[in-house]
Amino acid sequence: MSETKIDTRLWSSKARNLSPYVPGEQPQHDNLCKLNTNENPFPPSPKVGEAIAKVLTQQAQELRLYPAPESNDLRAALAQAYDLDVSQVFVGNGSDEVLALIFASFFLKERPLLSPDIGYSFYPVYAQTFGVHLVKIPLEEDFSIDPDAYRQPCSGIIIANPNAPTGLLLSLADIRKLASEHSNAVIVIDEAYIDFAQADADSTGSQVSAVSLINECDNVIVTQTFSKSRSLAGLRVGMAFGSASLIEALTRMKNSFNSYPLDKLAQAGATASVLDVDYFEQTRQQVIDLRTSLTEELTALGYKVLPSHANFIFARPKDGNASAVASALRDQGIIVRHFDKPRINEYLRITVGTAEQHERLIDTLKELHTETSMTAD
Amino acid sequence: MSETKIDTRLWSSKARNLSPYVPGEQPQHDNLCKLNTNENPFPPSPKVGEAIAKVLTQQAQELRLYPAPESNDLRAALAQAYDLDVSQVFVGNGSDEVLALIFASFFLKERPLLSPDIGYSFYPVYAQTFGVHLVKIPLEEDFSIDPDAYRQPCSGIIIANPNAPTGLLLSLADIRKLASEHSNAVIVIDEAYIDFAQADADSTGSQVSAVSLINECDNVIVTQTFSKSRSLAGLRVGMAFGSASLIEALTRMKNSFNSYPLDKLAQAGATASVLDVDYFEQTRQQVIDLRTSLTEELTALGYKVLPSHANFIFARPKDGNASAVASALRDQGIIVRHFDKPRINEYLRITVGTAEQHERLIDTLKELHTETSMTAD
Repeated sequence: MSETKIDTRLWSSKARNLSPYVPGEQPQHDNLCKLNTNENPFPPSPKVGEAIAKVLTQQAQELRLYPAPESNDLRAALAQAYDLDVSQVFVGNGSDEVLALIFASFFLKERPLLSPDIGYSFYPVYAQTFGVHLVKIPLEEDFSIDPDAYRQPCSGIIIANPNAPTGLLLSLADIRKLASEHSNAVIVIDEAYIDFAQADADSTGSQVSAVSLINECDNVIVTQTFSKSRSLAGLRVGMAFGSASLIEALTRMKNSFNSYPLDKLAQAGATASVLDVDYFEQTRQQVIDLRTSLTEELTALGYKVLPSHANFIFARPKDGNASAVASALRDQGIIVRHFDKPRINEYLRITVGTAEQHERLIDTLKELHTETSMTAD
Repeated sequence: MSETKIDTRLWSSKARNLSPYVPGEQPQHDNLCKLNTNENPFPPSPKVGEAIAKVLTQQAQELRLYPAPESNDLRAALAQAYDLDVSQVFVGNGSDEVLALIFASFFLKERPLLSPDIGYSFYPVYAQTFGVHLVKIPLEEDFSIDPDAYRQPCSGIIIANPNAPTGLLLSLADIRKLASEHSNAVIVIDEAYIDFAQADADSTGSQVSAVSLINECDNVIVTQTFSKSRSLAGLRVGMAFGSASLIEALTRMKNSFNSYPLDKLAQAGATASVLDVDYFEQTRQQVIDLRTSLTEELTALGYKVLPSHANFIFARPKDGNASAVASALRDQGIIVRHFDKPRINEYLRITVGTAEQHERLIDTLKELHTETSMTAD
């Protein structure tokens, strides 16, 4: 529907003023090399399909009944997997819904919410949806986050870690510092990509996820998703981990909005995914290995590649003309993401794909960069 | 988590002040006769399971990819089934989510939202969640709705039709009157149960659904659900029908909250359900027939049964002691719903079940009412 034709007479002013999130495109045609929406190149655990098929065949009547409103089996499986109490676990219809409920539960205050100026582009959308005052804190020149830049009164801080679209990782020590310096604020660590992160060699510990801080810091809430490391973007399941009192707020907000966000099949499939630890460990390591080789190949082509802890890499072609590269790739059926925004418009975000997809990408880039128009520095 | 232990220090005042919806209980034990949450006694169309199994087996990779954000196939199927344009169709994660988005899109205005004092108990919850000023208009003495009682400035009117928990039907003539008298307000007709409704014998037409008014009245929005007449409460799919401009507002609100509310399996299953017209017509007629026989049997036991157009009946035992009857039934493993609220606390809401469930209910009630304590008038 084109903008000029819309009759907004009956809309609330809030509806008129929205700037909705624009998801990465999902074109549907054959032989497309789709490296734009950070989906996992591997299918989900076979146990997921088996669990869903079991609901369909052995409990044919099940779908006529409402699902468990609090997804108790799934939350119990997650609690066990992450060594938490079930009261510290919340699940929702994708981490997007979980994040929306977090905004509604904790940030409607006079003090602003702080977030890096470059991050997940849904955060400013939520802020507008829920009337939250969002203040953006500039990343450092190298796209890293300096905790000292957040020293101001705030209702909360929200950071994607690894950050999007840079892929850079904030250390647990820095997160702990933010949490202790802002004890009356809620610190949200959005770990959509954390399962692909690896501790630096010079780090004191091997842990990277802030889930390990939940019992220590009662103001930290960690969100994760089944859409990336668990290859279940199509099933819409996300979760939050935090103190029982923070989780209780989310539960009440959920039950004031939509009591049954997870259908029976999603609950069964997600639970099976959590229980299949071997498959999870195996595929996430494969993605990490593929990220390493893709980084090496792009670096060899002259790209500057940021050290990624996610299932995508953020890379700058040597002439900085990322927009032209994205467009030329698209002509060859390869879709990557380019953000036409200050500071990051010379970069491409490329999802880690299969070895075959990487070969096609690199071959195409080699051809592009030997053409005159793409070699100018 | 008990109220006294909750630490709400980090919550927003909005979160502190919520009064979440309390869904009907879903006890899990054998031999329970569950007539409390208006689920369909029949399973969903077998085509639903087949369509979902097909996604799982023929497109094993599918779940790793994000679903279609606007559920285009499902909306196209609904548009065709209801003779509308696809731009007039919205779908969401159950009609509860659709209703929440409606509250956020249309009722955040100075003028109040009007709704019957007896209706779906989620409406006042949404009003509190979104800061909407809700004014309740008393039903008539016989629980009917008088359109003239709504003659006051308002942002909108929301009515469950058939109404819950009474089961009474408002005529299309009355809905048309409300829409024309409130041309600058959004009239929401929540038709969760409409597929079980039947036009009165003295009505001028056979139509009961306000979907037939969509092209005539640009301020009417109709919500429906797959949870009742389509036996898919476990799949979480609901929809709204309205003018393209009203639907556009809902789409923008959705994309400012959660871009992908319907997972791939729910989209596939719901689409298959819409396409299986024969099964739908057959099972809804069976429910209507079962409602008729249950009404007759309860009437024979001295119950006053309101003329129901839903898949539940609202019935008053002759002594009015509905609470005691509900409690005694529960002792026998039969769960019905009793609302401890003014005006309706002498009634029971009983979901239409299978013939076997009705036999068990009626037999148990016969025994109860021959005992001394339950016969007092």
